[in-house]
Amino acid sequence: MNIQKPYLLFLGDAHDQLAAKVAEGIKQWHPEYCVGQYRMANCHANCQLPDMDIDAAVKAGAKTLVVGVANRGGIISKEWISILTYALESGLDLAAGLHNKLADVPELKALADRLGRSLFDVRHPTQQYPVASGRKRSGKRLLPVGTDCSCGKMYTALAIEKEILARGGKATFRATGQTGILISGSGISVDAVVSDFVSGAVETLAPDNDADHWDIIEGQGSLFHPSFAGVTTGLIHGAQPDALVLCHEPTRTHMRGVDYPVPDILDCMALNLKMAQLTNPKAKFIGISVNTSALDKAEAIALMSSLQQRTGLPVVDPFRQGVGALVDALATL
Amino acid sequence: MNIQKPYLLFLGDAHDQLAAKVAEGIKQWHPEYCVGQYRMANCHANCQLPDMDIDAAVKAGAKTLVVGVANRGGIISKEWISILTYALESGLDLAAGLHNKLADVPELKALADRLGRSLFDVRHPTQQYPVASGRKRSGKRLLPVGTDCSCGKMYTALAIEKEILARGGKATFRATGQTGILISGSGISVDAVVSDFVSGAVETLAPDNDADHWDIIEGQGSLFHPSFAGVTTGLIHGAQPDALVLCHEPTRTHMRGVDYPVPDILDCMALNLKMAQLTNPKAKFIGISVNTSALDKAEAIALMSSLQQRTGLPVVDPFRQGVGALVDALATL
Repeated sequence: MNIQKPYLLFLGDAHDQLAAKVAEGIKQWHPEYCVGQYRMANCHANCQLPDMDIDAAVKAGAKTLVVGVANRGGIISKEWISILTYALESGLDLAAGLHNKLADVPELKALADRLGRSLFDVRHPTQQYPVASGRKRSGKRLLPVGTDCSCGKMYTALAIEKEILARGGKATFRATGQTGILISGSGISVDAVVSDFVSGAVETLAPDNDADHWDIIEGQGSLFHPSFAGVTTGLIHGAQPDALVLCHEPTRTHMRGVDYPVPDILDCMALNLKMAQLTNPKAKFIGISVNTSALDKAEAIALMSSLQQRTGLPVVDPFRQGVGALVDALATL
Repeated sequence: MNIQKPYLLFLGDAHDQLAAKVAEGIKQWHPEYCVGQYRMANCHANCQLPDMDIDAAVKAGAKTLVVGVANRGGIISKEWISILTYALESGLDLAAGLHNKLADVPELKALADRLGRSLFDVRHPTQQYPVASGRKRSGKRLLPVGTDCSCGKMYTALAIEKEILARGGKATFRATGQTGILISGSGISVDAVVSDFVSGAVETLAPDNDADHWDIIEGQGSLFHPSFAGVTTGLIHGAQPDALVLCHEPTRTHMRGVDYPVPDILDCMALNLKMAQLTNPKAKFIGISVNTSALDKAEAIALMSSLQQRTGLPVVDPFRQGVGALVDALATL
């Protein structure tokens, strides 16, 4: 899956700013991918990009219209179809990460086939992946893992990629979920891969590379989440991480969507390390990334200091301090 | 997936006895499901059932022709089609666990649709499963786990089901792979389920039950196999086992298909227990099942005695001693 850039971000009829968070993510991490935004008359989101219609976006060089909005239910709205159709007719590919597929809308599928355009349904893998070999690959790999789902793994990975590149190093963010794929333009939605092939898909996603190159692989789920730990296990084994970063949201009272407690930090690190060392015996934790957005500054400092003492590792909130301390720690690997 | 019984076992043109091992498994565990076997002129296997053609099998009450043979590549042979077609025309459903599907053979699909017959491709789930809830279910569950793939988990599970039923207890074998599904007539091939839904599929497979009922869930893979540990993790979490049995093949020098060492028994038990206790804090190992077929009697006794001393648990080879000692241990749970 390799989406042509640059993008026109489609905000559609977003009912609020949160509904456009995929578009916001793309704009935040890769503003250079975005020529403009398309907002319908009743759109209540704004990514602070030039407003463009399809004709203007094509003139500005756009190659793909990216659906950066999720409406309730994650479906493709009927109101969007004429715009998406016109985008295809004007020479754009379409990309979306919704539950139902662009390719399942008959008029879009037929038109794209006739015109030779691509429809990227990034949540739905189209490729077959091999069973994992477990063979050690060249190059280095970092994987954020979490005490829970949705606790900052993608943000941490993108921030680390950016920091390594800013320092002149070699790094590639490897997306494993739909938002990460739309942000970076490629990747594999591993939770939608048939279970036998998850580790193999991740081996494919992060292949042999230069000895000084870092693949920064997006983490998924948590080994302590009763719904998704199998996905996490397959991801860890396929990633063969040299470096692990623990991601944590300190105010969560239970695991996302289920009545299970959040694991203890040290217990969580020990199990992730045990799993990672199967396919890379040298795997080690190099730091902690906490999302302290729900804490005030004094609380955040106290929490981070306590975590630093318990683990002996650098602790950052990537949003407040950046990830410099984590990238510093990679120099020793 | 619920396959109508009894079966006509189709051995086709099996090139040796091993090629018919699925049929052998069905005959071994459920001879009462089998009215007879169908062997083509060049068949080199024999399950010691009455030889029957389709007409005789229908007359004997058969409801389903089960493809109990795997040819090289696991495909549906062209030479079989006229026989399978005649079986459909004669009122039989078809079931197979091959890589390619009965339903992908156009003449079989069209004929089955026209006649209202069912084609069971047991390796390929057709149903959608929910994301796992992690909710504790009523009834009791046992799960065999392994130091490796293919080390006796299905055999152990079937033997335990049989022993509990023979003692007048309540037990149901829950198949999670294609051979187990064909042997028992129902189940879910979990390694073919999309990774996000593996634990949910297993929750569906082994639902709430009587307080004194045992679901004996077929294990898959190994937490120490770099290709399949994600499947194993999802299976363990969905199973919520009260009782774990470690299955082990003592002469294996490396993990199946990969250049990885077989784990230490105690290390393997500790990690499986850690995983199982996430969704069932009371999970415990109740015994060890070893496949000593490659050892002579003295070697087998020495090995089992050593394992018993190291683990403090009953150790059986189900083929040599049966699983009575394991079922005895369930009485305390």
